[in-house]
Amino acid sequence: MKQLAAALVAGLTALAACWGNGRVISKTIEGMTRQPEIFNELRTNMFISVGLIEAVPILAIVISFLILFL
Amino acid sequence: MKQLAAALVAGLTALAACWGNGRVISKTIEGMTRQPEIFNELRTNMFISVGLIEAVPILAIVISFLILFL
Amino acid sequence: MKQLAAALVAGLTALAACWGNGRVISKTIEGMTRQPEIFNELRTNMFISVGLIEAVPILAIVISFLILFL
Amino acid sequence: MKQLAAALVAGLTALAACWGNGRVISKTIEGMTRQPEIFNELRTNMFISVGLIEAVPILAIVISFLILFL
Amino acid sequence: MKQLAAALVAGLTALAACWGNGRVISKTIEGMTRQPEIFNELRTNMFISVGLIEAVPILAIVISFLILFL
Amino acid sequence: MKQLAAALVAGLTALAACWGNGRVISKTIEGMTRQPEIFNELRTNMFISVGLIEAVPILAIVISFLILFL
Amino acid sequence: MKQLAAALVAGLTALAACWGNGRVISKTIEGMTRQPEIFNELRTNMFISVGLIEAVPILAIVISFLILFL
Amino acid sequence: MKQLAAALVAGLTALAACWGNGRVISKTIEGMTRQPEIFNELRTNMFISVGLIEAVPILAIVISFLILFL
Amino acid sequence: MKQLAAALVAGLTALAACWGNGRVISKTIEGMTRQPEIFNELRTNMFISVGLIEAVPILAIVISFLILFL
Amino acid sequence: MKQLAAALVAGLTALAACWGNGRVISKTIEGMTRQPEIFNELRTNMFISVGLIEAVPILAIVISFLILFL
Amino acid sequence: MKQLAAALVAGLTALAACWGNGRVISKTIEGMTRQPEIFNELRTNMFISVGLIEAVPILAIVISFLILFL
Amino acid sequence: MKQLAAALVAGLTALAACWGNGRVISKTIEGMTRQPEIFNELRTNMFISVGLIEAVPILAIVISFLILFL
Amino acid sequence: MKQLAAALVAGLTALAACWGNGRVISKTIEGMTRQPEIFNELRTNMFISVGLIEAVPILAIVISFLILFL
Amino acid sequence: MKQLAAALVAGLTALAACWGNGRVISKTIEGMTRQPEIFNELRTNMFISVGLIEAVPILAIVISFLILFL
Repeated sequence: MKQLAAALVAGLTALAACWGNGRVISKTIEGMTRQPEIFNELRTNMFISVGLIEAVPILAIVISFLILFL
Repeated sequence: MKQLAAALVAGLTALAACWGNGRVISKTIEGMTRQPEIFNELRTNMFISVGLIEAVPILAIVISFLILFL
Repeated sequence: MKQLAAALVAGLTALAACWGNGRVISKTIEGMTRQPEIFNELRTNMFISVGLIEAVPILAIVISFLILFL
Repeated sequence: MKQLAAALVAGLTALAACWGNGRVISKTIEGMTRQPEIFNELRTNMFISVGLIEAVPILAIVISFLILFL
Repeated sequence: MKQLAAALVAGLTALAACWGNGRVISKTIEGMTRQPEIFNELRTNMFISVGLIEAVPILAIVISFLILFL
Repeated sequence: MKQLAAALVAGLTALAACWGNGRVISKTIEGMTRQPEIFNELRTNMFISVGLIEAVPILAIVISFLILFL
Repeated sequence: MKQLAAALVAGLTALAACWGNGRVISKTIEGMTRQPEIFNELRTNMFISVGLIEAVPILAIVISFLILFL
Repeated sequence: MKQLAAALVAGLTALAACWGNGRVISKTIEGMTRQPEIFNELRTNMFISVGLIEAVPILAIVISFLILFL
Repeated sequence: MKQLAAALVAGLTALAACWGNGRVISKTIEGMTRQPEIFNELRTNMFISVGLIEAVPILAIVISFLILFL
Repeated sequence: MKQLAAALVAGLTALAACWGNGRVISKTIEGMTRQPEIFNELRTNMFISVGLIEAVPILAIVISFLILFL
Repeated sequence: MKQLAAALVAGLTALAACWGNGRVISKTIEGMTRQPEIFNELRTNMFISVGLIEAVPILAIVISFLILFL
Repeated sequence: MKQLAAALVAGLTALAACWGNGRVISKTIEGMTRQPEIFNELRTNMFISVGLIEAVPILAIVISFLILFL
Repeated sequence: MKQLAAALVAGLTALAACWGNGRVISKTIEGMTRQPEIFNELRTNMFISVGLIEAVPILAIVISFLILFL
Repeated sequence: MKQLAAALVAGLTALAACWGNGRVISKTIEGMTRQPEIFNELRTNMFISVGLIEAVPILAIVISFLILFL
């Protein structure tokens, strides 16, 4: 049961992080294409955004390791 | 059963937070691209928004730790 | 069974609050981009809206704690 | 079984209330952006709307407390 | 089993009422924004509509109380 | 089992009635906004429509009471 | 088992009838709004349509009563 | 088991017939609104169409009665 | 088990046939509305199409009777 | 178990064939409406297409008979 | 269990093949309607495409026969 | 259990391959229709694409045979 | 249980790889059609993209073999 | 149970990574097509994006190996 629980967290977290990152980064690329003169600001913003989005998934990955090794 | 419950909370919370953040940040980037002259106001607003959205997920993560260690 | 119930409430509540907040805040940002001259009114309105939306999820989080500790 | 039932009501109710409120408030913000001259009427209307929508969810939350403490 | 049944009714009813009300009220607000000169007629109509929609959910809430206390 | 069956009917019926009414009434409001000169005919038509739609849900509610009290 | 079967028929039938009627009537109202000069023909047609659609649901409701009382 | 099977057929058939009829009739009404000069041909065609669509659902209803009474 | 199997075939078949027929006939009506001068060719074509679509559902209904009476 | 398996194949096959045929034929009718001068070529092509699509469903129906009578 | 497995493969394969073929052929017909002067090239291409798509479903049907007769 | 596993792989793989191929080939046909002068390059590209897409499904079919005969 | 697990990985991986490849390649073909003068750069890019996408599915296929033979 | 858990992680991770990569890369290709003069910047950005997206899936794959070999 322990391993199934860790698997459930990891799977859903991967799904969530990929969904969120995929959406934000694809919007960024769309913005880069439309206004190439603010290319660098958008890229800087992209790194911050990815950091903000991955806050909760990293916590969930930590919970997954806790479930697995506790 | 305890571990499965903690896994369920963590997984759904990661999904929820990524969904909410992804939507808000992608809209912000769209706004930045359309009106680069209010770039900084939108970025400030983005941090406030992410904070407001993550209020409930952080509570749910706390519940997840409570379930796991109680 | 107690822990699974608390997990179910917390997970669904996080999903619900993120969905509702994400939708409202993204609309607000869209409005800010389109009419930057009412930036402050929209931001004030955003805080009220988030407060109204989080009324029921906070109650549900309370129920989650009640289930867990009762 | 009692706790799972209370959890089910609370979770679905939070989902429902956030969905309903999110939709109405986001439409209101859209209206505010398009016609800022009736900003106050729309805000007044928004409070009445949120009140009307939350009638049934509050009843459901009451049922949830009844299930939990009865 | 009794409590799970009451929970099922209450949860689905909250979902249904919020969906129906959310849709009607958001359309009303859209109408108000497009034609502010019939603001009052639309508001009156909104109250009648919400009353008509909530007829069946109120019956379902009654059934939920009957299941719970019978 | 009896109570779960009654709950199932009531929940699905509430969902169905709210869906149908919500759709018809929102279309009516859309029509009112577009052509305010036939406001009254559309309102009269709305009451007939709601009556026609609620024919089957009322029968289902009756079946729900029959299941509960038989 | 008998009561659950009757509940299943009644619930699905209510969903079906509301869906079908909701779609047809909302289209009729849309037509009325676009061409108010054939208001009466469309209303007559609406009654026939509702009759045609409710043929199978009424049969299903009959089956539901048969299951319940047989 | 017999009654659940009959219920399943009746419920799905009602869903199917309402879906099919709802789609065809709503298209017909759309056509009537766009070209009122072929109102009668479209109505005649509508009756034939409803007949063609209801061929299989009537067979399924017959199967439902066979399951119930055999 | 025999009756549930027959019910499953009949229900899914009714759903399938209504979906297929509903789609084809609604497209035909759309075509009739757009080009009333080839009304008869489209109607002839509609009968052939319904025949082609109902080939497999009729086979499935036959399988349903075989399951029921074998 | 044998009969349920045969039912599953027959039901899914009917769904699949109706979906595929419905899509192709409705596109054909759309094409006929837009370019009535190649009416006959499109009809010939429609028969070939239906034949190509029904290759796998007929094999699946054969498997269904094999499961039933073997 | 053997027969259920064969049924599962056959049903999903029929669904898959009909989906793929239906999509490709309907696009081909759309192309034929838009550019009738390359009617023959598109038809030749259609046969090749159907062949390419049916490669994996035919393998799956073979697996279904293997499961059934092995 | 062995046969069900093989069936699951084969069914999902067929679904996946048909989806991927159907999407790519239908896009190719759309491209051919829009720019018939690069007909041959697109057809060559189509064969490469189908090869690239079918890499993983062929591996999955191999796994299916391994499960069945091992 | 071992074989079911291997089947689950292989099936989901095939679905994932086909989805990802199908999306990227169809976009590439769309790009080729719109700007045939960068045909070769897009094709080179397509091979890199397919390689990047298939990194995780290949790992998952390896896990599938590990589950099967370990 | 151990193997099923590893399978679940690997399958969901493959789905997630393919979804995220597919979305980002397809947007990049769209951007390349629209503005071929920033072809190289977009390609560089694409590699960074794929790296950022695959951070969590790689962690989940590691968890999958840990579950399998621990």
